Amino acid sequence: MRQVAIVGVGLVPVREHWEISIRDLAVEAGRAAMEDAGVEKIDALYVGNMTSGSINQQRQLGALVADFLGQRGVEAVRMEAACGSAGSAMRQGILAVASGDYDAVLAIGVEKMTETPGADTTTALVGAADAEYEAIHGVSFVGLNALIMRRYMHEYGYQQQDFAPFAINAHANGAHNPYAMFRKAITRETYERGRMVSEPVSLFDASPIGDGAAALLLVPAEKAPRAVRVAGSAVATDTLSIHDRKDPLWLQAAEDSVRRAYAQAGVGPDDIDLFEAHDAFSIMAALSLEACGFAERGQGVRLAQEEAIMPGGRIPISTMGGLKARGHPVGATGLYQLAEATLQLRGDAGDAQIDGVRTALAQNIGGSGATIVTHVLQRQ
Amino acid sequence: MRQVAIVGVGLVPVREHWEISIRDLAVEAGRAAMEDAGVEKIDALYVGNMTSGSINQQRQLGALVADFLGQRGVEAVRMEAACGSAGSAMRQGILAVASGDYDAVLAIGVEKMTETPGADTTTALVGAADAEYEAIHGVSFVGLNALIMRRYMHEYGYQQQDFAPFAINAHANGAHNPYAMFRKAITRETYERGRMVSEPVSLFDASPIGDGAAALLLVPAEKAPRAVRVAGSAVATDTLSIHDRKDPLWLQAAEDSVRRAYAQAGVGPDDIDLFEAHDAFSIMAALSLEACGFAERGQGVRLAQEEAIMPGGRIPISTMGGLKARGHPVGATGLYQLAEATLQLRGDAGDAQIDGVRTALAQNIGGSGATIVTHVLQRQ
Repeated sequence: MRQVAIVGVGLVPVREHWEISIRDLAVEAGRAAMEDAGVEKIDALYVGNMTSGSINQQRQLGALVADFLGQRGVEAVRMEAACGSAGSAMRQGILAVASGDYDAVLAIGVEKMTETPGADTTTALVGAADAEYEAIHGVSFVGLNALIMRRYMHEYGYQQQDFAPFAINAHANGAHNPYAMFRKAITRETYERGRMVSEPVSLFDASPIGDGAAALLLVPAEKAPRAVRVAGSAVATDTLSIHDRKDPLWLQAAEDSVRRAYAQAGVGPDDIDLFEAHDAFSIMAALSLEACGFAERGQGVRLAQEEAIMPGGRIPISTMGGLKARGHPVGATGLYQLAEATLQLRGDAGDAQIDGVRTALAQNIGGSGATIVTHVLQRQ
Repeated sequence: MRQVAIVGVGLVPVREHWEISIRDLAVEAGRAAMEDAGVEKIDALYVGNMTSGSINQQRQLGALVADFLGQRGVEAVRMEAACGSAGSAMRQGILAVASGDYDAVLAIGVEKMTETPGADTTTALVGAADAEYEAIHGVSFVGLNALIMRRYMHEYGYQQQDFAPFAINAHANGAHNPYAMFRKAITRETYERGRMVSEPVSLFDASPIGDGAAALLLVPAEKAPRAVRVAGSAVATDTLSIHDRKDPLWLQAAEDSVRRAYAQAGVGPDDIDLFEAHDAFSIMAALSLEACGFAERGQGVRLAQEEAIMPGGRIPISTMGGLKARGHPVGATGLYQLAEATLQLRGDAGDAQIDGVRTALAQNIGGSGATIVTHVLQRQ
């Protein structure tokens, strides 16, 4: 099995891109990654996307994007695992290179959500939950996260405002990222004034959806010995329904996938210099920190309160703004995370640069923890 | 790169399964494939599906099906390439085994279409076409195929009734397949009485949608030296829009993918004993025969008229009924085709058995030819 390297990064700023179609968003990111790599011809394309079939009435994005990218004919397909779609596209791209089949593979995550009114988007998003056992009761996806957050507060004795450091860190970091949707730091007072979306999830505990696309170009590592290396890549799954889990406060699929990714890379939590966590909600960031071995059970929020998640802290997270400030174009997010980790490893993160980054962890979560894709990237 | 063998086949009869949910359809096929293989634990699951996000309001089918299949935790994801979704899931399953990552991989295709009224299904299906350049004009997916068929008739001088042998062969073969939706042979008179759906596509030139699931269990060939071998596996793409193709009557992605699959297997058209063609419409069967090298340009229909496509003919197609009689649960179809080819190679096709099958070709088409997945399977 061949090792895989990342030789190109392409990003579209996360915005409400009313004037750009889904295909053009994908093409812009893909072309930027190819230009960054100096590659003009790819062998295969994997597109991560969650909602285009319903929101954009467009399926078969693999072939469509390949064509408009000037790569008509190449193998292409779309991967879907709710908000874990782009991480899944990366994973398949890695398998395609590792298998020996292909030498230049593009993974693109893309989502275009501003085309339809709010209600349709909410319906599309709750498709990430179990339709017959969760969504049927009328709960929204934010509502499900509110239930988990409430339970966490109850079990471990926290208040809603204890989660403030996650939002403060993300927005401070997002201010340095030109591709971020929100580029303004917030204070604790701003957080505390945040209106409730679904109690106890406030506006500042939830990430904003948006339109965007991110792409990475993958090649066999022997062809790019100095490029950022994929040191670990793993996917694990869990029940869609939260009530089916032994412990609703434990991301089992995060633990399972990170354990495999750490083992592949020969590293542990102490070796990770930064962590692009899936902070779709503050509570998800806390649970991820715990499942990945950075904090004990119930201590993820404490870790944030101790400022260990800030730049310069023990385990910086959301270093380019995270889902919270960079924005969360759902099926594209996993590749934004991986692209940002790659920029950090290359020293190309600009004002958001974390010093001395050698090993980075990126974790992409589908649903409330049902599909979790974990990658360890390393600078050579 | 490791060779891959097929050790388990699982099929659900194609029907209007009003009483069975999409997850249960997938689980039934998956479990049957695992039982057939004598395998109790899989390493990864790839689910092919086209419309569940909109029709069933359920996304993230990979994790969901893994859980209900008793395989909670394994790597899983959904692949979508319109009607080429299940072929794509097979392709990814092959890459996962070939890469060396996994030793027991399940590919499941599933579609559950009878849950919503007709209009929604038509909208979901036209997502296979280009939303901005084709669907926006109000054309349906059947309508697009009617345009291609009309052009074919014009260019090569055929009448609508010249296409009759495709339907007659498919329905005769489907009568022998217990998993087929329609199990009744038809006469030429029946074909000629077929009402027009979208002229010149009559009821008997179009395949029926339905609910169904099909699964294959894949392992490294060295672990199953006597099992059916995946000798060739390739995907190629083309424009979604028919008007963007140099020749609307040539399936370039079929030619590209079959050429690669033939080369991998070290075979050519003369070595193929049966061909599970994507006969979603009679015209697609004709174009596939031409692109795969069984007939000259414009001679696909002639080949059918000469009965070369019938059992005992030079190149039997739709040997278990094809999409036409077995039924076309869109995102599941690619795995029905591969499962049927496997049964034929094992000598397990019952009354539909073709004698002396050593090498089989299966081709799964997304859209009107935008994603084409081609596999060559061989008996050892």
